[in-house]
Amino acid sequence: MTAAVPKVLALSGGVGGAKLSLGLQQVLPAGALHVLVNTADDFEHMGLHISPDIDTVLYTLSGRANRSQGWGLEGETWNTLQALESLGGETWFRLGDRDLATHLWRSNQLAQGADLSALTSALAAQLGLSTSVHPMSADPVRTLVHTEEGELPFQHYFVRRQCEPRVSGFTFHGLDNARPNPDVLALLASGQVSHIVVCPSNPYVSVDPILQLPGMWQMLRDHAAPVVLVSPIVAGLAIKGPAAKMMAELQVPVTALGVARHYAQRYPGLVDHFLIDESDATLADDINALGLVTHCCATVMKTLEDKTQLAQACLRLEAL
Amino acid sequence: MTAAVPKVLALSGGVGGAKLSLGLQQVLPAGALHVLVNTADDFEHMGLHISPDIDTVLYTLSGRANRSQGWGLEGETWNTLQALESLGGETWFRLGDRDLATHLWRSNQLAQGADLSALTSALAAQLGLSTSVHPMSADPVRTLVHTEEGELPFQHYFVRRQCEPRVSGFTFHGLDNARPNPDVLALLASGQVSHIVVCPSNPYVSVDPILQLPGMWQMLRDHAAPVVLVSPIVAGLAIKGPAAKMMAELQVPVTALGVARHYAQRYPGLVDHFLIDESDATLADDINALGLVTHCCATVMKTLEDKTQLAQACLRLEAL
Repeated sequence: MTAAVPKVLALSGGVGGAKLSLGLQQVLPAGALHVLVNTADDFEHMGLHISPDIDTVLYTLSGRANRSQGWGLEGETWNTLQALESLGGETWFRLGDRDLATHLWRSNQLAQGADLSALTSALAAQLGLSTSVHPMSADPVRTLVHTEEGELPFQHYFVRRQCEPRVSGFTFHGLDNARPNPDVLALLASGQVSHIVVCPSNPYVSVDPILQLPGMWQMLRDHAAPVVLVSPIVAGLAIKGPAAKMMAELQVPVTALGVARHYAQRYPGLVDHFLIDESDATLADDINALGLVTHCCATVMKTLEDKTQLAQACLRLEAL
Repeated sequence: MTAAVPKVLALSGGVGGAKLSLGLQQVLPAGALHVLVNTADDFEHMGLHISPDIDTVLYTLSGRANRSQGWGLEGETWNTLQALESLGGETWFRLGDRDLATHLWRSNQLAQGADLSALTSALAAQLGLSTSVHPMSADPVRTLVHTEEGELPFQHYFVRRQCEPRVSGFTFHGLDNARPNPDVLALLASGQVSHIVVCPSNPYVSVDPILQLPGMWQMLRDHAAPVVLVSPIVAGLAIKGPAAKMMAELQVPVTALGVARHYAQRYPGLVDHFLIDESDATLADDINALGLVTHCCATVMKTLEDKTQLAQACLRLEAL
């Protein structure tokens, strides 16, 4: 008998989470990484079920993501979308020709009664991944963004309105009745998980929906593995996406300290270690005072080496 | 006041009907042609509503049809389909990237409660057509092909099984409760229709569903305008599609005479004039004996000139 390989569970939204997940995948043995992905920004568009964060994670981990635009596939073509535009169809959500195949296939399978979790595993297998990618829940959860223009479905806020409307809060419709992915519950109960990494994803719209699934954050808090959070805010800026703009509009300090406070207040005792960027080192004492053990390192992930180094920094940390 | 321009109503399936419709469109004043199109081979595929005959007519009349393959769009690309294939999705029905936009747009509009007739008009307008294209009914009618392998939905027989299974009959599911397109009923009642042309489409699976809509063939029979039928069989061969193979399997003589008998027996008194190919001139006496006035001309439509000449031959004929 050989000892079971320790598993790592990463919580991820889209781009930022996918980047660190790629770093983790690089440094871990094949099959050791499990990524639990936000599905609260899933939506229905042109009759298709679209899971943007799952696709970003799948495409990134398989090396197929378009790196310059931050979504979709490398070398994509846009012939369907152009034809749709000439028909007066909706084109604000950019459906690439190859990406569309993912949506068509998944939507058709879902309509036939398949489970989002099984479909995600099938997509991961088809892409040749050894990493397990798990939707946070098979039950529909939909983020509504409270804005000065009213409540907007997340993709309408994020893509159609380019995050322009001022934000005052969020509702995760369906969250109270959503069951956490049972495969992940089984993984957590297996005693094999060595690290839980909360990726540098948007705290409000990517990580909160995962943690607020019924019982989820308490289960992670009570788990023996250390919970390691990586700050999505560096030097007052979000690397990608609207996190910084949202924090400002919610009147939260746009700093790693503001992030730390969000987690400490909303999920007391959850986060053991907090990785902040070296450029934010002066915040460390104030964050430590919240009960999070703070570590400074390079958190900006431009190259694959950046990603693997940040992954290694996460995995070096131990339970308190 | 100017006199109303006479209208021409053409009954059409896919390729053959679309070709003669194009000829009619060429020789008639703008707006004079109305094409009533079979929808009994419409189907649901990958969650999309697909109307193959309507699309063939729309693409042909707008000069966008792929002429060599006989379906789909000229200059089409296949990136979605290739990606779908790599996902193990169904690829037997060849969805081109641009064609897919039509299906996505129409499916989404139908799901929102739009009417197939209005959507077809919108597509025709978007393509710049002055011809009116009418689905035979907004109610779903679905052809089941009785074969030695059991009952096959039409596209499964036609595309997936390449018309290979031996045919013994057809059922048009939903036909008894399908209402003929009210725009076409109004057109017929308007007194403006000068000619009714039954295009050289498959008698069994393209024209029969239209004529067997409740009350339809009787209304056409009783109309003052001459009903002109063009033979889909020339010298014992079907120009396109499985008509000849079906006739042989149904033990009907594979000749223009076999076609004439089908119409004379099933729809007595409907057809006034029957245009057969010059190469079938020896059949004229036997067909005349059935009560159809037979005319010989060149019916094979390869060039645009072939199409316009055949259209002119149809329009020269007068009520008996």
